[in-house]
Amino acid sequence: MKKITVLGGGTGAFVVLSGLKKQPLELAAVVAMTDSGGSTGKLRDQLGVLPPGDLRQCLVALSEAPNLWRKLFVYRFKTGDLKGHNFGNIFLSALEKVSKDYNEVIDLTSYVLKTKGRVIPITFKKTHLSVEYASGSVLNGEGPIDENWQEASRIVKAYLTPPVESNPKALEQIKVSDFIVVGPGDLYTSIIPILLVDGVKDSLKKTKAKIIYIMNLMTKGGQTTDYKATDHLKDLEKYLGRKPDYVLINTGQIPSQVVQYYLPENQKPVVNDLTPATFKGTILKEDILDEKIHKKGASDMVNPVVRSILRHDSKKLGLVLGTLFHD
Amino acid sequence: MKKITVLGGGTGAFVVLSGLKKQPLELAAVVAMTDSGGSTGKLRDQLGVLPPGDLRQCLVALSEAPNLWRKLFVYRFKTGDLKGHNFGNIFLSALEKVSKDYNEVIDLTSYVLKTKGRVIPITFKKTHLSVEYASGSVLNGEGPIDENWQEASRIVKAYLTPPVESNPKALEQIKVSDFIVVGPGDLYTSIIPILLVDGVKDSLKKTKAKIIYIMNLMTKGGQTTDYKATDHLKDLEKYLGRKPDYVLINTGQIPSQVVQYYLPENQKPVVNDLTPATFKGTILKEDILDEKIHKKGASDMVNPVVRSILRHDSKKLGLVLGTLFHD
Repeated sequence: MKKITVLGGGTGAFVVLSGLKKQPLELAAVVAMTDSGGSTGKLRDQLGVLPPGDLRQCLVALSEAPNLWRKLFVYRFKTGDLKGHNFGNIFLSALEKVSKDYNEVIDLTSYVLKTKGRVIPITFKKTHLSVEYASGSVLNGEGPIDENWQEASRIVKAYLTPPVESNPKALEQIKVSDFIVVGPGDLYTSIIPILLVDGVKDSLKKTKAKIIYIMNLMTKGGQTTDYKATDHLKDLEKYLGRKPDYVLINTGQIPSQVVQYYLPENQKPVVNDLTPATFKGTILKEDILDEKIHKKGASDMVNPVVRSILRHDSKKLGLVLGTLFHD
Repeated sequence: MKKITVLGGGTGAFVVLSGLKKQPLELAAVVAMTDSGGSTGKLRDQLGVLPPGDLRQCLVALSEAPNLWRKLFVYRFKTGDLKGHNFGNIFLSALEKVSKDYNEVIDLTSYVLKTKGRVIPITFKKTHLSVEYASGSVLNGEGPIDENWQEASRIVKAYLTPPVESNPKALEQIKVSDFIVVGPGDLYTSIIPILLVDGVKDSLKKTKAKIIYIMNLMTKGGQTTDYKATDHLKDLEKYLGRKPDYVLINTGQIPSQVVQYYLPENQKPVVNDLTPATFKGTILKEDILDEKIHKKGASDMVNPVVRSILRHDSKKLGLVLGTLFHD
């Protein structure tokens, strides 16, 4: 079976993994460990745990347990002391407190969720994303970066504070993969934090895996404001250390009311300006748009700009990627 | 195999069930559903769930899952939003929110904890214990009753507000049991709330099961202040509707420093004044004292008078009861 590795976190990784779960593939998710917003950020600060949110999303996406387990792990408390906290995040945090190491946390959670494939944290070390804007200002932590969505200045540099060593299993996974799927997801707060961990860029250079970059549907205020497709690629390649072999970009029409909805948040559909002259790899243009408009979840009460109402479609993505993998 | 049912909740039920778990018995716990103190009380108030604490203790006591699961379910958060909350309580509460009914909650939790035997809530209806003191004052809720440990006046009446129907499975369990073990545990806040649920007294009158009452080691301020063994029995029989067949009472010497420790909380060793004249059943006098002194847990920060530092010994209890069951 082909070995497929998804790099990312959040809703983007959830959607890709969900679309690939039913296919005869050896699946793995290599997951960002720098989230510091919402429930995850509070648990990090208050309990000193590793960020559970991105791991939880990937574990649930790959779960083949009865539906009740998945419902439990995505349940978010609405009132009282636990308000805004997600049960899956609490589960991972408590388990971290009683486990001998984080491998045990992942193993036990994968066991109860009957996770198909492997979920691999990119690092077990505590770190935060830092970014420097062209204006010279610096922000530390994904929470503050997400909240800074009105920033007009471009990000010129991203790094981890402190720099951290990678989980050897993640590097090994990158090495043995046939395909590595990057994104979709916020470029600076879901994708690049993985690439910044020690050894990742080097492993990505050496692997024989083909790299597929799934272009975001929308720009992100303060991160990729007014970015076209070539801008996304340029920033990605800087941290990836190589060009992706494929770029998969949506051709489905984004409804005008969705475009309107995103405007006040400084987000616009990503314009596809890729040409054979600007990108040497394969450009895959497909309708991969989810026609459902997703409601913002309870977590958005904490941080209103984090979650997308517009998403890629799991099934469409699964079909397109599956065809590529089985070629 | 003999069918053994333990009636109670809290540390007392935990100790008895732990002592019996390894024996070839068909075990069940019929559990009080009126706790309203500490983490359980907050979750009830804030989330509108059924009280998870007593159920969790029984489920963990009967668990044959790897130790990590038991450690997880008794883990209590020490900082932040979750401070003072027990993970097992949070698990049961979240599961209640996503389950179709409470049977599903118990089934899934029993499954992950590999619970030997059955844990049966006495009711699925929300209710609180109310007590009336000889002074005429009335208190509602186990939290307030526990906190009223300086009360000098005796409790003259206990009832549920509102009265509630029982879980039919609990009545059936009482009916088919060979032995029913009552206690140890706080007479008014762990034992009697079970007996007050509609139909329980009637089922206890009709069952052919032998009833064994395990006498508490210490009196409880505000509930059984200065109670001797006969006082405990008298109050118990009022709500039990019959006499127990056996009373098991400790003969092990309670260390004087423990007696001193409990004095400021208005608690004293229960004096055994049972004689063949005052109790017609079998009086079993045995050393069933745990020689370890248990530290008060984190939950005691919330309610300092709830948890015992002195306990019955699981193994000793298991031996004495086992001999009786297999006679």
